[in-house]
Amino acid sequence: MPTTRVAVCQYAIDIDDPAGTLKRLRASVAEAAEAEPQVIVLPELCTSGYVFHDIAEAQSRAEPVDGPTVQLFRELSFKHHAIVVGGFCERSDGDRPFNSAAVVENGEVLVVYRKTHLWGTEKLIFTAGDEPAPVVNTSVGKIAVMICYDAEFPEMVGSVARRGAQLVLAPSNWPALKLPPPPGERAPEVVKAQAFAAVNRVFTVVADRIGSERGVDWIGGSVICNVWGYPMAGPANGDALVLWADLDLNQAFTKAVGVQNNSFEDRRPELY
Amino acid sequence: MPTTRVAVCQYAIDIDDPAGTLKRLRASVAEAAEAEPQVIVLPELCTSGYVFHDIAEAQSRAEPVDGPTVQLFRELSFKHHAIVVGGFCERSDGDRPFNSAAVVENGEVLVVYRKTHLWGTEKLIFTAGDEPAPVVNTSVGKIAVMICYDAEFPEMVGSVARRGAQLVLAPSNWPALKLPPPPGERAPEVVKAQAFAAVNRVFTVVADRIGSERGVDWIGGSVICNVWGYPMAGPANGDALVLWADLDLNQAFTKAVGVQNNSFEDRRPELY
Repeated sequence: MPTTRVAVCQYAIDIDDPAGTLKRLRASVAEAAEAEPQVIVLPELCTSGYVFHDIAEAQSRAEPVDGPTVQLFRELSFKHHAIVVGGFCERSDGDRPFNSAAVVENGEVLVVYRKTHLWGTEKLIFTAGDEPAPVVNTSVGKIAVMICYDAEFPEMVGSVARRGAQLVLAPSNWPALKLPPPPGERAPEVVKAQAFAAVNRVFTVVADRIGSERGVDWIGGSVICNVWGYPMAGPANGDALVLWADLDLNQAFTKAVGVQNNSFEDRRPELY
Repeated sequence: MPTTRVAVCQYAIDIDDPAGTLKRLRASVAEAAEAEPQVIVLPELCTSGYVFHDIAEAQSRAEPVDGPTVQLFRELSFKHHAIVVGGFCERSDGDRPFNSAAVVENGEVLVVYRKTHLWGTEKLIFTAGDEPAPVVNTSVGKIAVMICYDAEFPEMVGSVARRGAQLVLAPSNWPALKLPPPPGERAPEVVKAQAFAAVNRVFTVVADRIGSERGVDWIGGSVICNVWGYPMAGPANGDALVLWADLDLNQAFTKAVGVQNNSFEDRRPELY
């Protein structure tokens, strides 16, 4: 069976050190490239950082789709013959930027998605997108992209799965929890990524970040889940690292469970 | 803060040994009662067993709501001053029974729910219910009941949570997986119970069973999850046992997450 190698780059992002952030991004992608992945997933806001002081600062870091971050994705996709997915602060026509992610293959921007569920102070900084999470055709199969908190809504993952997504990618910045999980427990974000993979029989991939930023710490919990919701790589535990796994994306075509059941056909939306 | 003590009885059910099953049920409830719980949750089909040969056998074991199983729930609710919830094979007007669950308080049947998502050969034996999972007022708060596979659909749990359920009870019979989880991983059913608790900020409780039955083994993975999706008791690991935990059901009233977010208000159904 042909498999697709998917890599996640988890590195330290620092809004006050753009050059260092870019250096660590490039080093992480170079490390990932050694495994010759067909898909490379980067975090949310992967060049700018996350903890903006205010709208003005976010606007000052916002870029158009033909700006340097997506240009970098294009360069990396050419160089490593890989689909590159990552988040960036996208300039808008309005007074606030979008928290966006791009899917780039072979130097071509296949889609740009604008985060629709804003977390915390993002609501004070960004404009929320108004379009559903996209499902795009790529050389490896149908890929959906959503961003961080988006992927905590089961209907979001269900929606892209029912539109044919095999691989659901979520560039993320998971802030550390005020109350850390009890010993031996995974962060709820990880548990949700596992569960929604299993519910929809899709692969879910979260690219998280590390690096203390203006007093905010991060889980650094990147994970690659298979269609049964089991981690194939990760969950990471706060370290800078590359995760990768070989995924048989055809498994996501099968929604049957045994002879009698089917994850999609068994749904009864009229009752919900 | 006042808490509600919820107990789960996980015992061996054997369709070919009704007397032994009843004895083990009573012993498990007696053990649970020592902790003086306000809610006692029993498995799916908790007196009949699960692995029916055919419709005729299921019909022969089907009972009306005033039959012996729900009468037992009434007796136990009186005796132990507890809400008793459990599953039974319910006689219907048609040619197949329902896979049902009753919620009984103080000897009174508050609601009977008929399983709407049938698993495996249940589709050949039972009639599926056509009513949403109920949310009932009880002395401890609003309780929802659904059965086993029902609770693997995130929209089912979301639906009862948005109708005010604080405590979601799922009498279950989780058949053992053909491929057991990788070492250190929980069964996907457990992961879903955790995730859907966290998504909806409700308590989820699964009462599973054990006991090899006509060649079918069972996970025996009963679990009580808090509103962050962390297990407060369990997941059990295939043994006969009673789980119990003290739940502050008022926590389920708060859907706010920090200052800016709310699990319910942040949903964007128009995008799903």
